[in-house]
Amino acid sequence: MIRDYNIHTDLALEDKERFESDQVEISGVEVEEIYNEEKEIQITTVRILTENGAKAMRKPVGTYITMEAPNLTAPDEAYQMEIAKEMALHLKDMLKVEKKEYTVLVVGLGNREVTPDALGPLVVEELFVTRHLVKEFGKFVLKNHTLNLVSAIAPGVMAQTGMETSEIVKGIVSEIQPDFIIAIDALAARNTKRLNRTIQIADTGINPGSGVGNHRNGITKETMGVPVIAIGVPTVVDAATIVRDTMEHVIKELKIETDELLLEQWIAPHLHGMFVTPKDIDETIARIGITVSEALNLLFQENS
Amino acid sequence: MIRDYNIHTDLALEDKERFESDQVEISGVEVEEIYNEEKEIQITTVRILTENGAKAMRKPVGTYITMEAPNLTAPDEAYQMEIAKEMALHLKDMLKVEKKEYTVLVVGLGNREVTPDALGPLVVEELFVTRHLVKEFGKFVLKNHTLNLVSAIAPGVMAQTGMETSEIVKGIVSEIQPDFIIAIDALAARNTKRLNRTIQIADTGINPGSGVGNHRNGITKETMGVPVIAIGVPTVVDAATIVRDTMEHVIKELKIETDELLLEQWIAPHLHGMFVTPKDIDETIARIGITVSEALNLLFQENS
Amino acid sequence: MIRDYNIHTDLALEDKERFESDQVEISGVEVEEIYNEEKEIQITTVRILTENGAKAMRKPVGTYITMEAPNLTAPDEAYQMEIAKEMALHLKDMLKVEKKEYTVLVVGLGNREVTPDALGPLVVEELFVTRHLVKEFGKFVLKNHTLNLVSAIAPGVMAQTGMETSEIVKGIVSEIQPDFIIAIDALAARNTKRLNRTIQIADTGINPGSGVGNHRNGITKETMGVPVIAIGVPTVVDAATIVRDTMEHVIKELKIETDELLLEQWIAPHLHGMFVTPKDIDETIARIGITVSEALNLLFQENS
Amino acid sequence: MIRDYNIHTDLALEDKERFESDQVEISGVEVEEIYNEEKEIQITTVRILTENGAKAMRKPVGTYITMEAPNLTAPDEAYQMEIAKEMALHLKDMLKVEKKEYTVLVVGLGNREVTPDALGPLVVEELFVTRHLVKEFGKFVLKNHTLNLVSAIAPGVMAQTGMETSEIVKGIVSEIQPDFIIAIDALAARNTKRLNRTIQIADTGINPGSGVGNHRNGITKETMGVPVIAIGVPTVVDAATIVRDTMEHVIKELKIETDELLLEQWIAPHLHGMFVTPKDIDETIARIGITVSEALNLLFQENS
Repeated sequence: MIRDYNIHTDLALEDKERFESDQVEISGVEVEEIYNEEKEIQITTVRILTENGAKAMRKPVGTYITMEAPNLTAPDEAYQMEIAKEMALHLKDMLKVEKKEYTVLVVGLGNREVTPDALGPLVVEELFVTRHLVKEFGKFVLKNHTLNLVSAIAPGVMAQTGMETSEIVKGIVSEIQPDFIIAIDALAARNTKRLNRTIQIADTGINPGSGVGNHRNGITKETMGVPVIAIGVPTVVDAATIVRDTMEHVIKELKIETDELLLEQWIAPHLHGMFVTPKDIDETIARIGITVSEALNLLFQENS
Repeated sequence: MIRDYNIHTDLALEDKERFESDQVEISGVEVEEIYNEEKEIQITTVRILTENGAKAMRKPVGTYITMEAPNLTAPDEAYQMEIAKEMALHLKDMLKVEKKEYTVLVVGLGNREVTPDALGPLVVEELFVTRHLVKEFGKFVLKNHTLNLVSAIAPGVMAQTGMETSEIVKGIVSEIQPDFIIAIDALAARNTKRLNRTIQIADTGINPGSGVGNHRNGITKETMGVPVIAIGVPTVVDAATIVRDTMEHVIKELKIETDELLLEQWIAPHLHGMFVTPKDIDETIARIGITVSEALNLLFQENS
Repeated sequence: MIRDYNIHTDLALEDKERFESDQVEISGVEVEEIYNEEKEIQITTVRILTENGAKAMRKPVGTYITMEAPNLTAPDEAYQMEIAKEMALHLKDMLKVEKKEYTVLVVGLGNREVTPDALGPLVVEELFVTRHLVKEFGKFVLKNHTLNLVSAIAPGVMAQTGMETSEIVKGIVSEIQPDFIIAIDALAARNTKRLNRTIQIADTGINPGSGVGNHRNGITKETMGVPVIAIGVPTVVDAATIVRDTMEHVIKELKIETDELLLEQWIAPHLHGMFVTPKDIDETIARIGITVSEALNLLFQENS
Repeated sequence: MIRDYNIHTDLALEDKERFESDQVEISGVEVEEIYNEEKEIQITTVRILTENGAKAMRKPVGTYITMEAPNLTAPDEAYQMEIAKEMALHLKDMLKVEKKEYTVLVVGLGNREVTPDALGPLVVEELFVTRHLVKEFGKFVLKNHTLNLVSAIAPGVMAQTGMETSEIVKGIVSEIQPDFIIAIDALAARNTKRLNRTIQIADTGINPGSGVGNHRNGITKETMGVPVIAIGVPTVVDAATIVRDTMEHVIKELKIETDELLLEQWIAPHLHGMFVTPKDIDETIARIGITVSEALNLLFQENS
């Protein structure tokens, strides 16, 4: 039987599902599911507790919260505000900030010019930054605002800058010394049904090989020296993954004995560097971008 | 055996290839191939001469010239100018304009906000329009320029306008009465190896069901009342097509007898409305956009 | 004394003010002012009733409603929704549509690439178009929606298309035959204090010489055959106007007798084709664009 | 007489002109003018040699080369390539790089969303970056290319990031340690006749108060630790400057004795934060952006 040994997904939820299909329990991994009927949001929390669990899940030790909402991109602003509020709650939980006033750096990863990779830059565009205002006007900055110092950057991708994004972010971090980083990125899912209806929040930061643009270096607590929360939304599926998945299904159904290496060869190598994305990705990405930035605005401006 | 009865490609070249693999001759279809070694451009001209040929090829009667250049999107401006010159020659041949000074409407089809669908709008952005200048200043307009009246529009897609693109174009045509229309569109190919290295020029206009955005109504001589030349560049492959093609290949190799209808079912229906595109589509589309607009600028400004 | 004989403003409100400063009553012009204290909106309605009034005001006979709100571009979504509601009311009054279900064409005038001229295209981007949905799915289109057919176009400016915008719009109108047109445009004011805090709604359409891009031909009931409501927001002041106004003020203060023709000469002729705009025009125009599109969405989706 | 004591220009050329009108020689400042008749380019080199000269010129000690070409933005690619070559020569002279292979960081200052401030980001978009390629593939990177490591960033403006641009750049510099920085910025001129026909190259970097966005902190050798070459193109004139200049002229012509402080009051304070820019700034800025990036590509790819 073909084993999906090299199938990539950025969603811990999908890694977990691989095991479910084989009815295997993974030691070192805890899963908790809550369904909010009223809001129609499924919240799945995957906690990878040990290095063993991390190996099985191919993801670093940490907490991964996935919010699934079928109507995430429906043109319904009130509903999207509900999602944003829910998201802000989970982010607050994960951050456990103790400072009364903190400095945060929001990093919008991805390429503004490639529609399904533009999520990060779009969130930064919509974000309400305050660091310069608080620094200049102090507590008189704006009535009803906290004094949290919010800064943001959309650094572009390596093909545009010639630099690893992690190099750019690390440099900025050393200058402005934020208390934590929030990094937003478009993700690759394994299953097209996840696209544009799923938000993953993780306290593990951005790890090498993840994201639509496939980061070579990580943006993590280890590399940056401060906690990094990653917010990711799957917007593409790797083209080879889709072909492989369908083939696996067919071969299972036809009860064919075959050699998986041979199959790998048949999967057109020209699918390398190709991704699958929905035709209405422009509207979708614009809507999710607003929802995520709204969640962050709520989080940062909340009066403690 | 599985027959690709519902596989869609916008390239006449790929329709022709279906028959080659079965070593079938199609009556009513002529094919001519020329390889320009120096420029490394393969020119294939497919002429569909009869309704029979049209039915077999699933494309209207007409002439389809395909230019294939592996280095089409290499960062080499001199080479791209060569491509533009070659393209201008084929366009001139196809147009057979007899008027000394003509009016042309260039239509950039597609959605500016979806990277692989942005070719048309990008070409219009780079185009040198002159109609307003010639109308106001006549032959004094610009030294070394012909008095051709060049106008252009990027009307957007139906989801943005609420109108069929053909409705918009027809309205404009009735007002400015061009001698002919040149419509630029991003196309769907069947094979990823065609992507971003192929340009198709056809005298059949834009037909229903073609293009990344899948036009419902045509922009053709029949609907517009003037000749319509279509310039198309494949930038996506339909996601279902890629899966179907690979599966077909595997089943052939494994010599499995199977039911094609069953296979259709296994191809995930959630692939509907999804496309496959390369990760570096932003740079690619920008370069091809410049090459195509350069070809049009050469064509229109040429002194007769 | 210098008379502002050739000072241009697109705001009827500012034309009226010229006379006030001279304490002159203009026959054929009615003015009504209402201040909404709670919402901090000043509503001024200028009704030009006769050709005499039109001549004095240098604007066509018709009704001009100006909404002035100092906080129009403050980052306060709730307040902007109030403005949008107020605007929708005035538009409804002005339209007097009797049909239960109507077709409307929204035209976003201006150049997307020039920040202060981008208002029209931005509104079209945010608008909820429905014509294609209603045409395809009829009354099942979307629950809680009326069956008004909303279509929209951002045709670009003459330097991009080679065509008069009025030609493009007229062509589209002849195809889709809307019951009325709503045209959005960035305007030139005379006084910088009007910028980005004023919205003008007029039942006279778009007239030659108006707008940031200075339309040469009109988009009016006369040229289009259907009513045209114009929504305009001043985003620039003509550079020569600012210089002339300040100079006039100085000369008045210094009680200098001078020759106005001489003064005209001194106003640098290289100011021709230059405009004055605020540095934060990017944020401002984005906010007003959302407010105007929100007003239109409210207007069109209202159940009668 | 009114003295232009607080008139701001980013061009050393215009500072120098202030003194010429009073026929004053400035000690510590050398000026050299060369006119290239064939190319129609005027090259003016202003060398500020002493602190005294710097005080008089209100610019730091250093070399300022101004290229003036009336046809800088004409749609003539061959001519623009000539300008780019000339520019590359002056940059090479100024850099005096001795390393065979160097690392450069190009910084595109300004706000992509405000047309006349978008020059820096546009140049970065067009630039050919190589640092990541050289780092990964070494000397096999691309035939005919030097091994210079070119990196680039368009960091956005403070209102978008909450950070001083100098903070961001300093952070990146500490990470990638370039041999020098080239910073591109849109400038404010004093005279509209300079707009879009002038390029200034200076070895003094970016100084506080300069640029359309008015940088608060400098990007200079002192703050960054490596040489900073600034490339600037004037795209706006401060609105108050235009009014003040015309008034000064009128008052001189009318031989009026007046109080300059009083005049300052009459210059509308609401002109604060307003700038003057040409209506066709979109095309202009796009053309100059390509010319500047072409000059940098020539400079960096030249084989030594």
